[in-house]
Amino acid sequence: MSQPIYDRVALIGLGLIASSMFWAIKRAGLAKEVTGYARSQATRDTARQIGLCDRICDSAAEAAEGADLVVLCVPVGVMGAVAQEIAPVLKPGATISDVGSVKRHVIDAVTPFVPEGVHFIPAHPLAGTEHSGPESGFAELYDNRWCLLVPVEGSDRAAVEKLRALWEGIGANVEEMDADHHDLVLAVTSHAPHLIAYTMVGVADDLRRVTDSEVIKYSAAGFRDFTRIAASDPTMWRDVFLSNKDATLEILGRFTEELFALQRAIRTGDGDHLFDYFTRTRAIRRGIIEAGQDTDAPDFGRGKAKS
Amino acid sequence: MSQPIYDRVALIGLGLIASSMFWAIKRAGLAKEVTGYARSQATRDTARQIGLCDRICDSAAEAAEGADLVVLCVPVGVMGAVAQEIAPVLKPGATISDVGSVKRHVIDAVTPFVPEGVHFIPAHPLAGTEHSGPESGFAELYDNRWCLLVPVEGSDRAAVEKLRALWEGIGANVEEMDADHHDLVLAVTSHAPHLIAYTMVGVADDLRRVTDSEVIKYSAAGFRDFTRIAASDPTMWRDVFLSNKDATLEILGRFTEELFALQRAIRTGDGDHLFDYFTRTRAIRRGIIEAGQDTDAPDFGRGKAKS
Repeated sequence: MSQPIYDRVALIGLGLIASSMFWAIKRAGLAKEVTGYARSQATRDTARQIGLCDRICDSAAEAAEGADLVVLCVPVGVMGAVAQEIAPVLKPGATISDVGSVKRHVIDAVTPFVPEGVHFIPAHPLAGTEHSGPESGFAELYDNRWCLLVPVEGSDRAAVEKLRALWEGIGANVEEMDADHHDLVLAVTSHAPHLIAYTMVGVADDLRRVTDSEVIKYSAAGFRDFTRIAASDPTMWRDVFLSNKDATLEILGRFTEELFALQRAIRTGDGDHLFDYFTRTRAIRRGIIEAGQDTDAPDFGRGKAKS
Repeated sequence: MSQPIYDRVALIGLGLIASSMFWAIKRAGLAKEVTGYARSQATRDTARQIGLCDRICDSAAEAAEGADLVVLCVPVGVMGAVAQEIAPVLKPGATISDVGSVKRHVIDAVTPFVPEGVHFIPAHPLAGTEHSGPESGFAELYDNRWCLLVPVEGSDRAAVEKLRALWEGIGANVEEMDADHHDLVLAVTSHAPHLIAYTMVGVADDLRRVTDSEVIKYSAAGFRDFTRIAASDPTMWRDVFLSNKDATLEILGRFTEELFALQRAIRTGDGDHLFDYFTRTRAIRRGIIEAGQDTDAPDFGRGKAKS
């Protein structure tokens, strides 16, 4: 057990990210008390039943009041509204942070409501599963994953270091990044891949001449790798695309351009172009294995899944 | 141990698929002898060193001579040439099969060389990893995976049933399918997803404003799921796209159409369209889990990968 870093942490929104944060904070003893709030009564009931948070409150303001750190774990599209709601109760010297997948939009939406004397330090932990809701969390989610801190102009260094210590205590590796660069990097590594996966799964679902049951049966041939990310939370992802519009559309434009070039190579029978392209992409995969961001175990251990 | 199904099996080409077949055949005692041949001297040397196959031969004809089953495990683009090479030594009543990812093209390429009295039964096991070469094989690769048999007109039923028994003994579930339908189903579940993954990884590798090291570090946010299939063997995949051109281009056309519709929804801020689309794709994922073709363990157990 570490020394507590904050006396009280408030988690607003109780999905996969917040519930995993709670279990990881408890695992390492990083806060004396963690309060929680979710908009839906059913989620609050579930949270109480499974012991998620030390205290579940019936309003965001109640959860945030007196907290040293308030973390907004709600979809990007409602960050501003929640910030407005809790602003009046934030205590001087407190830190407000978030876990949104887009940073420029969140900064624009939240900043106007941050009271004088409160530190706003946006953050984005790069971890997730296809599951959502208060029961989907687990303490190990952030182990060896990255958490990006995106301090805004004038962020208090001591407050930033405290938040960094929390995320490191939760298991993550922490880096700092500028908001616009964050949004571009994430458009490449996350937002565009998600949209592409959603698209491919939608196409497969919609073909008249191939049935869904065939798609499902024969998914191990490659398609399966797309379905995990295409099963992610629809509300969260709708908000991500709408709030990181420019960077996502830029990457998708590049993607379409390259795809057309490869389609043309197929159509004209240009095997050399295909071979060279496919050879180049292998190096990226090796880098990911070496960086410890994936395992090279055959089939990711999926071979053990039995019907 | 089962009864041997064939006295002698010959594996032509010694990559992931053939080497896994060998270990699985040995595991279940499905053949009295397995011979093997690979074009490269280095591969044959490696095979001899690691005990892959009972006997490694220095020509395809030598390996195929006297075999009851000859399996062509070479890239789709050279199936015809290999069939021509071994045709003179095939014994009457023998079965020739293959493991190619495309079936119409292989049938057109191989059929002209199949001698009278030899049974040609194309097959396609739907299993693989990102690894290739003689040392990448393992006996469990086909366990609970599908193998599609694509009998041609006039295929001998007894010979088909024998080949089915072999694949079931190797661990696979077997179905029969028509060649053209096979090529369309695989275009959806495998070929188009591979091309899309290759494209996305290529785009990420090529962006000036985001470094490769950033792409690698932050890949867990979604991109990583594309890199496994984009690390597959370049020669094999070049041949797949060139030989299943029409079906692949058809699916890619549909994909592009859908992608443009989603891009437009992002540009115009049509959140409902995005939300509905993303909700629909979740059901496919559930089907795959229920069909035992993937695990729903959080993060596929990748969380255990340490740097």
